[in-house]
Formats: sequence, structure tokens, C-alpha cells
Amino acid sequence: MELYTYYRSTSSYRVRIALALKGLDYRALPINLIAPGGGEQRQPAYLAVNPQGRVPALRTDAGDVLTQSPAIIEFLEERYPQVPLLASDLLTRARERAVAAVIGCDIHPLHNSGTTNLLRQWGHDDAQVLEWIGHWVSQGLAAVEQLIGDTGYCFGKAPGLADVYLIPQLYAAQRFKVSLEVYPRIRRVAALAEQHPAFIKAHPANQPDTPL
Amino acid sequence: MELYTYYRSTSSYRVRIALALKGLDYRALPINLIAPGGGEQRQPAYLAVNPQGRVPALRTDAGDVLTQSPAIIEFLEERYPQVPLLASDLLTRARERAVAAVIGCDIHPLHNSGTTNLLRQWGHDDAQVLEWIGHWVSQGLAAVEQLIGDTGYCFGKAPGLADVYLIPQLYAAQRFKVSLEVYPRIRRVAALAEQHPAFIKAHPANQPDTPL
Repeated sequence: MELYTYYRSTSSYRVRIALALKGLDYRALPINLIAPGGGEQRQPAYLAVNPQGRVPALRTDAGDVLTQSPAIIEFLEERYPQVPLLASDLLTRARERAVAAVIGCDIHPLHNSGTTNLLRQWGHDDAQVLEWIGHWVSQGLAAVEQLIGDTGYCFGKAPGLADVYLIPQLYAAQRFKVSLEVYPRIRRVAALAEQHPAFIKAHPANQPDTPL
Repeated sequence: MELYTYYRSTSSYRVRIALALKGLDYRALPINLIAPGGGEQRQPAYLAVNPQGRVPALRTDAGDVLTQSPAIIEFLEERYPQVPLLASDLLTRARERAVAAVIGCDIHPLHNSGTTNLLRQWGHDDAQVLEWIGHWVSQGLAAVEQLIGDTGYCFGKAPGLADVYLIPQLYAAQRFKVSLEVYPRIRRVAALAEQHPAFIKAHPANQPDTPL
């Protein structure tokens, strides 16, 4: 498989964690979203891969290109069911997917670069953009804190779909200076993931396109 | 089952379509998001159901409350596999979920009432808010137009997950005065859904809380 990825993109980071948890090898094809002269995601070469001009995109072993991290992760779960990311009972699966949706729908789209770029175009300065981001990240993480469990990862002893979404979101929270102090369950999960080889491998600090 | 719903909420509308396509009965429990004196979603009675204060929420026959429309719809698909919303082959499933994610992550969160309310609090007027909404809806629908097929519903003869997301998004597009003229495939799907009993049943015009 080949993954079009950007080291700091949280949705790329999700897919990298899913691949690493499942022990799947892939070739990283970095797309520099802030390349001098224009992000590579807007260049013809990448638009031919993904017309939406977003990362990640996954080329499967069969040569098909998949887009949108929620769809890619569900594909990996169905195609490579070993090391499952979802529980076997339907209720827990729904809870895991609810956490994924809080992060993937209610938090991340509001601080994605396209969104904050438009806010800047509309005259909002860095302080206001940080306030905007902080509003959505705090509100969303408060919901996640209530949804996840009291021990282990988000839903038990092994990491799963909710953790795949949460850990990249926490990386973004830190980058945007949102405090995690009032989320003890989330901080517990973060501490576990910090020691886990798959999360370490997928971390933005450890990618081929990570700046020196 | 019981569904906490608001007639005009596009994420509630998605779940209503999924329930109707599968022929599942449920009791509608309307939550008035714009009740005089404060939206019912922020009142203690509803926060006890869903602490996030968002609709929809589904109470299953077993009494469990599920939140977040993407998680609810996947639950319905797994619990009631008759009349499937997803294709059986993994590649088409990934394409259907990609369309769902474009709408559920890249469009809807940007025009959700929480988002536009914050823009208004920041001093943007109605015209600017409509411009903001139009930007995201147009950009997202252009991606959907490229992802869906050339005949029938989004992916073939029967409606499925992509249609469950697309039709409510088109309702919102119309409400916010975004033209669909440049999306012939999308208009084809819309015309089919207009005649389909499940989509008619789920439409915001036909709900118990629809204003007279």
C-alpha cells in the first residue's frame, strides 16, 4: 500500500496509527501542504490522485485510491480484520464510532487549515483564530471525556478506533495551546499511547517528511 | 426505538432516511432547537439523554442511547442488515463512506448552527454567513459530484449510505440558496429521491414537529 500523507495532518496521522496498530507495511508518499510556491495538494500531480486536494489518500495493493480518513480506516478494518479496531458487540462499536464522529465532525473540521485560512482571509488575526480553535477543541474534548471509559485506552485494554482519532486530536490541541488539565480520562489515554510502539511510529515527529 | 430529532436538522434527517429505507418503526421525540427561551437541546432534560446537547440521539429497543449520526447509521446497518445501505464489496463501501465523510466532515460542520452562531457573535452579518456557507457547500458538493456514479442513485440502482447523507445536504443547500446547477449527477440523484417513499417520509416537511 501507499499512503499520501503529511506529517502534521491529523487525518493522515489517524490512518498511520490504524496501519501501525494492524502491523501493515506501506510506502509513505509525503505531500507538503505548505510547500513554498503553493501546497502540493493543489498541484496537478496530486489532484490527479485525489481531486479534492486533501490528504490522506491510500493506494491499495490492488491499485485503487481511497480518500477520506473515516472511509480509509473502515476499509482497513474490513480488509485486515486481524488486530480489530472495533469491539465485537454492537453497542461498544457505536460508542467507539461516536467518539470518532465527535472528533472527526465536531472538532477537526473547525480547525482544519482550510477553515482557519478562510477566517484569516476574513480579517481575523492569529489570536482570534486561536480562540476559535480553542472553543471547538475544548467543547469537543469535554464530550469525549464523558464518552470514554475509566480505565485503559478509550474503551478498554487495547487501543481502538476512538484512540486512533483521539491521539492526533490531542497533538493538534497541544499545537494550538489548548490545556488538557480538565480531562483526566483523556490524559490517561494519552499517557498510555505515548508508550505504545504503533502510536510512536505514527507520530508526526517520526515521519519521513518531518522537518529536521 | 425512539429518535430524538428536529425536523430541519440534517443529521437527524440522515437517520430518519436510514430508518425509513430499512423499514424500521420508531417513535419521534422532537427537540426544538430554536424554542423561545432557549433551545431544548440545552435544557437539563435533554442533556441527561445526550450530554453533548446535539440531535439526533437514538434510544434502542434495549434502552441504550446512541449519539452521533455516523455512529447511529453504522449501528443500524449492523443491527438490521436487511435492506443494506452499504455495498457488499469493500471498494464500493469505501467510496460510499468517502461521500458520507465529505458531507459529514467537510460540509455540514461548517454550516451547523453552532458554527454560524459563533460567526454571528464575531460580528459577521447574514450576507457574510451565507457566503461562508456557500463556500463550503459548493466546494464539498463539487467533490461529491466527482465521486458518485453516472446512473441511478449515488452508487447504483438502490439508495444507500451516500444518498442518506446527500439528500439532507441538498435540503440545506436549498435552504441556504446554493445553486445545484453545475452538479448534474447530484441533481439526478435528487430527482430520484424526491419520488422515493422513504425519502418522502423522512423529509423535514413531513415530521411531527414541522411548523404549520
